[in-house]
Amino acid sequence: MNVDRRRLEQSIEELGRIGQTPRGGLTRLALTDEDKRGRDWMVARMREAGLTVTVDQMGNIFGQRAGTASLPPVMMGSHVDSVPTGGRYDGQLGVLCGLEVIRTLNDQKLRTRHPVTLAIFTNEEGARFQPAMIASGVMAGKIALEDAYNARDKDGIRLLDELERIGYLGSEPCVPRPFRAYLELHIEQGPFLEEEGLSVGVVEGIVAIAWSRLTIHGVQDHAGPTPMRIRHDALVAAAEVIGGVRRIAREIGGDLVTTIGNLVVTPNIVNAIPGRVTLSIDMRDPQDATLDQALARLTSVVREACEREGVRYELENYWRVPYTPFDRDLVDTVERAARGAGARYRRIRSGAGHDAQYMAAIGPTGMVFVPSHDGRSHCEEEFTAIDDIEHGARTLLLAAVDLAGQA
Amino acid sequence: MNVDRRRLEQSIEELGRIGQTPRGGLTRLALTDEDKRGRDWMVARMREAGLTVTVDQMGNIFGQRAGTASLPPVMMGSHVDSVPTGGRYDGQLGVLCGLEVIRTLNDQKLRTRHPVTLAIFTNEEGARFQPAMIASGVMAGKIALEDAYNARDKDGIRLLDELERIGYLGSEPCVPRPFRAYLELHIEQGPFLEEEGLSVGVVEGIVAIAWSRLTIHGVQDHAGPTPMRIRHDALVAAAEVIGGVRRIAREIGGDLVTTIGNLVVTPNIVNAIPGRVTLSIDMRDPQDATLDQALARLTSVVREACEREGVRYELENYWRVPYTPFDRDLVDTVERAARGAGARYRRIRSGAGHDAQYMAAIGPTGMVFVPSHDGRSHCEEEFTAIDDIEHGARTLLLAAVDLAGQA
Repeated sequence: MNVDRRRLEQSIEELGRIGQTPRGGLTRLALTDEDKRGRDWMVARMREAGLTVTVDQMGNIFGQRAGTASLPPVMMGSHVDSVPTGGRYDGQLGVLCGLEVIRTLNDQKLRTRHPVTLAIFTNEEGARFQPAMIASGVMAGKIALEDAYNARDKDGIRLLDELERIGYLGSEPCVPRPFRAYLELHIEQGPFLEEEGLSVGVVEGIVAIAWSRLTIHGVQDHAGPTPMRIRHDALVAAAEVIGGVRRIAREIGGDLVTTIGNLVVTPNIVNAIPGRVTLSIDMRDPQDATLDQALARLTSVVREACEREGVRYELENYWRVPYTPFDRDLVDTVERAARGAGARYRRIRSGAGHDAQYMAAIGPTGMVFVPSHDGRSHCEEEFTAIDDIEHGARTLLLAAVDLAGQA
Repeated sequence: MNVDRRRLEQSIEELGRIGQTPRGGLTRLALTDEDKRGRDWMVARMREAGLTVTVDQMGNIFGQRAGTASLPPVMMGSHVDSVPTGGRYDGQLGVLCGLEVIRTLNDQKLRTRHPVTLAIFTNEEGARFQPAMIASGVMAGKIALEDAYNARDKDGIRLLDELERIGYLGSEPCVPRPFRAYLELHIEQGPFLEEEGLSVGVVEGIVAIAWSRLTIHGVQDHAGPTPMRIRHDALVAAAEVIGGVRRIAREIGGDLVTTIGNLVVTPNIVNAIPGRVTLSIDMRDPQDATLDQALARLTSVVREACEREGVRYELENYWRVPYTPFDRDLVDTVERAARGAGARYRRIRSGAGHDAQYMAAIGPTGMVFVPSHDGRSHCEEEFTAIDDIEHGARTLLLAAVDLAGQA
């Protein structure tokens, strides 16, 4: 039993056109018009495949294929939102492989005991509304619905208002729902599978993640007549923090990664000493204890940099997800499926957060990775070869059938 | 003979309301609706004072009070555009003190041999269109009119189109025009006058200025699964450049000032390694040779920072104004006027660029500085006490009458 490689390729191509950038990437920020068009396209395909489609209070979309018994579903899913100038595989590929699995079950007229459900989660990226994975977070009871509704994008627009505007404010409660298993296929977004010539990663768990926000208050002044001796430059302090955050990763070593991805300067003109800088700090490690250590060092790095420049600051550690190990039986199931699919595979940990991280708090969860060319992701150059995608999709198919049980 | 302190205070108050920020500063970017309202207010006051108002091809406004002889005018001027969240004194004060001088001449029914002209220059700040002082630069023949017309703001809007839109695209040629003297009153924007308890600075010249633009091309990638060893982070390289540019000022010392005021990250989201950073470098020194030395060091700082992170870059030194000494006789005239006005004063150099810098290439030019509280400028806290303003305005009045000659 295998998926239809051509059909899968074509659906990647078609959905990839919605929000496509001139250089072949994707800009489809959560709850924008492009996201609505992506969702509409998916809902149409789900209905064509005979699924019963429902939408919950967070705009999560569920398409259910009935089982022969009254049992909780095997759920497959991912997201269709992207980062700005991101790629066409991140998120989208998991949703489309899930759709392909269902289409294959239909082609084979294969009935399963458990229903099989395809899920599309809202605002996984966190590029527009923060935190990331906000909708699976609400479903898992980790984020309050009210807080999620009140999340605002950089222009101050509320998530709730955008959900309503694009017509995806559903009525189903966004609460933990029982499932036999949650399976998410995703691109690795790192270099390991490609470096080792493998097609599939059997994901054992997701690293711990901490997000912090730093605001530095300098003294805005004229860049010309202000002598160096009286300056309190917010950007000079920020630069020291950036160097210090890189040093934390180098000194602690191992699998720790640290990134400053967002930085905004005020007033941001050539001839004014920056009066304010806000920046983000993203740190990840498989060990929660290592992340604690990194956060402690961050506090010192920031304090020292700001004291040296004589500037005030606020440092807020506003989001933390602990290391998430996946269900051991489910990891074994996925590994069996990878073997059955004839894929060259290995066990791997995810360095990126996924909705699977929150779903693991509700029920047995697993993931299937496929390689990212040059390890690149969150960029227009994101690419995964169709051979690898086929192996991944087939792994997903075999695992889903195994879990749902042939009737 | 003295200016009317109350009337001057009131006009500062009135013009300061146009584009006023909630915290009492000013946002009146060049050629915006606020700038148009500021210009309209000034033109109305100039007409009330009996001046003949003309506008040139760059939107520079001239209001002329006739002299008794057919001689070139004594020109006073400055600008009414501001930086974002700037102050209500930078630029505006020079224009209003010039207006007050003319009103005083009218009150006194004092006729002068030379005409006396009030000038308002377009886009002095360079906050919206670059380079700064673009319109006096065109007048002095240092910037081509076509290049100035094609300058674009960050949204891609052309200067020419905005001039036309706000109704200030005049017909007078923007070319060097003869003048007896150009006098500009301005806030010091630095701490020296206040530190020494002085009311007036007699400006001897303006420091040399160099503006550069750096674009760093890193490799945009996901902040999670991308191990530190394969990263090429444009912001990490930028942070090294920021530290290095600060170090250039510390190592060369003296009066050299270096500032990175503008920095933009792409894609600028929490969980993506920055793929591109653009930033500005502003360096100033009274000695052209020192600035050459600083620019050479900048080249090394950028090369080393970018090599270390393995990122590509383009460094463009796109604007340079040499040290501008003012006319010695005119500096003596201003000093005499300061003495006559009963001001505590000293000779000083300007660390900021002003339209006077380009005007000095056309004819005899001088400036009058008044103190900036705490040396602060280009910020909402910008403040100059009315006692100091009165001393400065009276200095301007006495110098203007001296140069224009009582009829």
